Amino acid sequence: MPLSQDQQDEIDALRSQTTPTLRATVPGIEEHLYKAMPVLDHGFVRVIDYMGDDAAICQAARVSYGRGTKSVQNDEGLIRYLMRHWHSTPFEMCELKLHVKLPVFVARQWIRHRTANVNEYSARYSILDREFYIPAPENLNAQSAVNNQGRGDLLQGEEAARVLEYLKADSARAYDHYSEMISQDEDQQGLARELARMNLPANIYTQWYWKVDLHNLFHFLRLRADAHAQYEIRVYAEAMCRLVADWVPFAYKAFEDYRMGAVTMSAQMIDCLQRMLAGEEVTEETCGMSKREWREFQDVLKKG
Amino acid sequence: MPLSQDQQDEIDALRSQTTPTLRATVPGIEEHLYKAMPVLDHGFVRVIDYMGDDAAICQAARVSYGRGTKSVQNDEGLIRYLMRHWHSTPFEMCELKLHVKLPVFVARQWIRHRTANVNEYSARYSILDREFYIPAPENLNAQSAVNNQGRGDLLQGEEAARVLEYLKADSARAYDHYSEMISQDEDQQGLARELARMNLPANIYTQWYWKVDLHNLFHFLRLRADAHAQYEIRVYAEAMCRLVADWVPFAYKAFEDYRMGAVTMSAQMIDCLQRMLAGEEVTEETCGMSKREWREFQDVLKKG
Amino acid sequence: MPLSQDQQDEIDALRSQTTPTLRATVPGIEEHLYKAMPVLDHGFVRVIDYMGDDAAICQAARVSYGRGTKSVQNDEGLIRYLMRHWHSTPFEMCELKLHVKLPVFVARQWIRHRTANVNEYSARYSILDREFYIPAPENLNAQSAVNNQGRGDLLQGEEAARVLEYLKADSARAYDHYSEMISQDEDQQGLARELARMNLPANIYTQWYWKVDLHNLFHFLRLRADAHAQYEIRVYAEAMCRLVADWVPFAYKAFEDYRMGAVTMSAQMIDCLQRMLAGEEVTEETCGMSKREWREFQDVLKKG
Amino acid sequence: MPLSQDQQDEIDALRSQTTPTLRATVPGIEEHLYKAMPVLDHGFVRVIDYMGDDAAICQAARVSYGRGTKSVQNDEGLIRYLMRHWHSTPFEMCELKLHVKLPVFVARQWIRHRTANVNEYSARYSILDREFYIPAPENLNAQSAVNNQGRGDLLQGEEAARVLEYLKADSARAYDHYSEMISQDEDQQGLARELARMNLPANIYTQWYWKVDLHNLFHFLRLRADAHAQYEIRVYAEAMCRLVADWVPFAYKAFEDYRMGAVTMSAQMIDCLQRMLAGEEVTEETCGMSKREWREFQDVLKKG
Repeated sequence: MPLSQDQQDEIDALRSQTTPTLRATVPGIEEHLYKAMPVLDHGFVRVIDYMGDDAAICQAARVSYGRGTKSVQNDEGLIRYLMRHWHSTPFEMCELKLHVKLPVFVARQWIRHRTANVNEYSARYSILDREFYIPAPENLNAQSAVNNQGRGDLLQGEEAARVLEYLKADSARAYDHYSEMISQDEDQQGLARELARMNLPANIYTQWYWKVDLHNLFHFLRLRADAHAQYEIRVYAEAMCRLVADWVPFAYKAFEDYRMGAVTMSAQMIDCLQRMLAGEEVTEETCGMSKREWREFQDVLKKG
Repeated sequence: MPLSQDQQDEIDALRSQTTPTLRATVPGIEEHLYKAMPVLDHGFVRVIDYMGDDAAICQAARVSYGRGTKSVQNDEGLIRYLMRHWHSTPFEMCELKLHVKLPVFVARQWIRHRTANVNEYSARYSILDREFYIPAPENLNAQSAVNNQGRGDLLQGEEAARVLEYLKADSARAYDHYSEMISQDEDQQGLARELARMNLPANIYTQWYWKVDLHNLFHFLRLRADAHAQYEIRVYAEAMCRLVADWVPFAYKAFEDYRMGAVTMSAQMIDCLQRMLAGEEVTEETCGMSKREWREFQDVLKKG
Repeated sequence: MPLSQDQQDEIDALRSQTTPTLRATVPGIEEHLYKAMPVLDHGFVRVIDYMGDDAAICQAARVSYGRGTKSVQNDEGLIRYLMRHWHSTPFEMCELKLHVKLPVFVARQWIRHRTANVNEYSARYSILDREFYIPAPENLNAQSAVNNQGRGDLLQGEEAARVLEYLKADSARAYDHYSEMISQDEDQQGLARELARMNLPANIYTQWYWKVDLHNLFHFLRLRADAHAQYEIRVYAEAMCRLVADWVPFAYKAFEDYRMGAVTMSAQMIDCLQRMLAGEEVTEETCGMSKREWREFQDVLKKG
Repeated sequence: MPLSQDQQDEIDALRSQTTPTLRATVPGIEEHLYKAMPVLDHGFVRVIDYMGDDAAICQAARVSYGRGTKSVQNDEGLIRYLMRHWHSTPFEMCELKLHVKLPVFVARQWIRHRTANVNEYSARYSILDREFYIPAPENLNAQSAVNNQGRGDLLQGEEAARVLEYLKADSARAYDHYSEMISQDEDQQGLARELARMNLPANIYTQWYWKVDLHNLFHFLRLRADAHAQYEIRVYAEAMCRLVADWVPFAYKAFEDYRMGAVTMSAQMIDCLQRMLAGEEVTEETCGMSKREWREFQDVLKKG
């Protein structure tokens, strides 16, 4: 359970009362506001605030005094054009603020995206909760044999059991000792929190407020919702994709068509394509690409 | 007049209708939404959207599930603490989106602040309006005799008249030729807009959407609302100060006390101060600072 | 002539003397150091400093203690892999510092790339030189009839002559008045420089130091060396491409193959391609794309 | 020992051979190049590359063709002026690239500085070394009783011994299990590295290449070399201070005087100061500040 009753009560209080605003408002994302969308065993993504909507993208693109284009169709067409031609600044005019609870090893990958605002729960100042990510059996994969940076088949039987046992027991022991080291009584002063935290493993959960503009969010999602991303960050990206689809549906559809579902072909690939469409049979030997690129090219042609 | 009737109508339409939202809402800034606050002779600042309020700063600082601290007094105390100790990330959790109309030479200074999102009206794509900044007589200063980068006394009489005449006539002629060069008829194709714009002087007005987080906005305001900033950008900064004061009053007050009204003293200045407070008479000769620093130190002691 | 004799002498002095260093050094770019590569009628690009080489990209990718990979072939393969798979951080480990002289309207486009360091010559503090960009007749194009943001045919005869005359005369007059306004004598105080500059048109030259990492430089070059970029910024980008090719030849080749010469195909385009390769005749009617996207697809298939 | 013999050999090879360059070169930092400056029990800071020197700051500030100012004295004066008046762009024209080995909990604090380039050793792709930070007895402090975010007295006797025992034993066990989980033989496939890493505690060492400009480096050092920073990151900052002092001595001295050793006084503090210098006895009751600010003010007056 990612939320305590107290936390749920605070969220319910926030959701119990609306105020009128002159700002652009999107019912689809209002529906999500403050709620915790569960991710992994103890994590979540919560929308805390948003700025802008599909029309706001057009409004910025036209530097307009009113709401942007005159019709909804025009809005969609303009948004698709902007996405296709990499005009990124209008997408930066929308902003999303999230509260995310996530394992530390996921947080470490996430933070490599630098163009966002972050405020993380401080383990220097506060005491972390006893919550650790333990993979479900269906996500407990072996190292990939072909890709140094990927997963292979599921672990089975005894091996799986032993791994889960290690992860659980080591987390529990590390937290017990963390707790014991910082506790204060007549016999002990208690280790400084900023030191004690070093005993905690990377599957402990942390939390942060994360705020990002739509352009940089799409960049994040393209990399992290991708099939090659690590499962544990991908599920966060997928949850965010659902939020964005409810928030700015035209922009999200354009993102799907021109980013997520799109493919970049190298100069060599384009050359091969043209030869193939002209009827030539192009092979690995005649393609002018490395083995690896040829394989990637074959994948593209079968994609979807 | 910075606005046409059509533009005013679009603004009135936007202001005519509220929608309910669950988000943090601030009546003080809602009052400003979409309205054009006039700056210089044809410019303005308009609030297009905002995200967050004073409480949102505390909420992020505490990574909380609800609204942050329990009381308004706590909020103010926490905000002042964060500002005083340079904890900048919670301030980044508020965001402001503006539509600004400003002379190009002001825009060129403004854009040096890189941590913001900008979407400028394109003179490659569109035709600029015939609007130029002409200084009012009370802002037509001579070059400072003591500061290479500042203004001295007001220009007077004939000199002032001649300068204004040059500025007006050159702008008018440049725009006439711009207009003529791009116009198309049976006799001429019309110069590409992306080329014709090069004939326009730096006092022509441009427009942009500009979006920035509160931390970076404060940094901008500290530099540009400062007495040493050029008058023509300072008036924009001052207009924004009024907006921010109505939006996040606690944060703005802390900014006034710990940034705008504050002074950074060098190690040498602190040393002098301590000696002075101990009763020593410290002079330019015995202070251990350069002439220039000593003068700056004297200014600080008389400040306010 | 972009350089005065004094400036050329300063450059010659800098080029007259080497010092030994333990750092990575690239003879190809040392050859360019400090020299002014002319661009447009009075502009230039000068390499002031560089950090890193092709091997430094590999060294960072491997977080290695020595020079990176063991062989030059490995270096090239790794660099191509990193480029193909958008691993951008190793490219950020190379840095280039340039001194650029360029017309103000080009500078305004350039500065929209925010992830770089810039120090511009200050017209608040100093007096600008009397140098204006006047297009050569072969770059004096009409507005495009099909693209709001592009150029059409060359202007001819009388129209071309009139445009050139306007550009020259207006620049000259604006500068004369600028000069007169700031000049000081017994009769006049001289207008503040920060005000007088507003009379100068956008084709006046400015200068700046611009420092950027290789990843962000490639991003700049992909957009600005592109055929759709405005000619006047494209020639700067092309000059920089030549510099980069001499500095990090493997990275530059990978950039050409996977960025400049590459094409991003939307989900719909990939679908069409697959149908075409399977023998289906796909037409504008059956493609599932908008008219505009279909035309762009046709262009891709004919590219190169 | 932070380095293996192989690693030391690679470093010696890099230091064995100079090449001539036309670039600005600084003997003081050349002396450090590639060498590992030890920090904590297994960590280090190594300079991999640098760009620029003190003169390069002046050269950029003046946008000059040659080396900047005419004399070394002028250089120092200009640098002090730029630092004092927050002209940050010229400092951005120097760049430093480091290889750093550091505990993960330090890395997590460090990375909050976003304006730098980072390439971290990947535990998704590679296997981490068995190296953990274990505090020396003289750095094993209790939680501060007065500051939630600080350290108090040293732990003593049995309590200290138990803490060290926990830290050592938990690290060792976590690594044993990490090792066992990823190992492959006939009986087991081996857990994916990207999953196994989650068992490792935050005191394990990681490594990265980190590249930053001088302005942003100073910002980092001001916060992290400060007495309030956590000891474990402060020792890295202090090591970097020594490097920077040898690289750009004028800029470093200005940084010491106007940043590290400087104090920002609020509007209220300045008001009190003026009253005190005028002979008034100002007390906590009459100062107009909160208790906490008054205490901070008292600290300032005794500083140094």
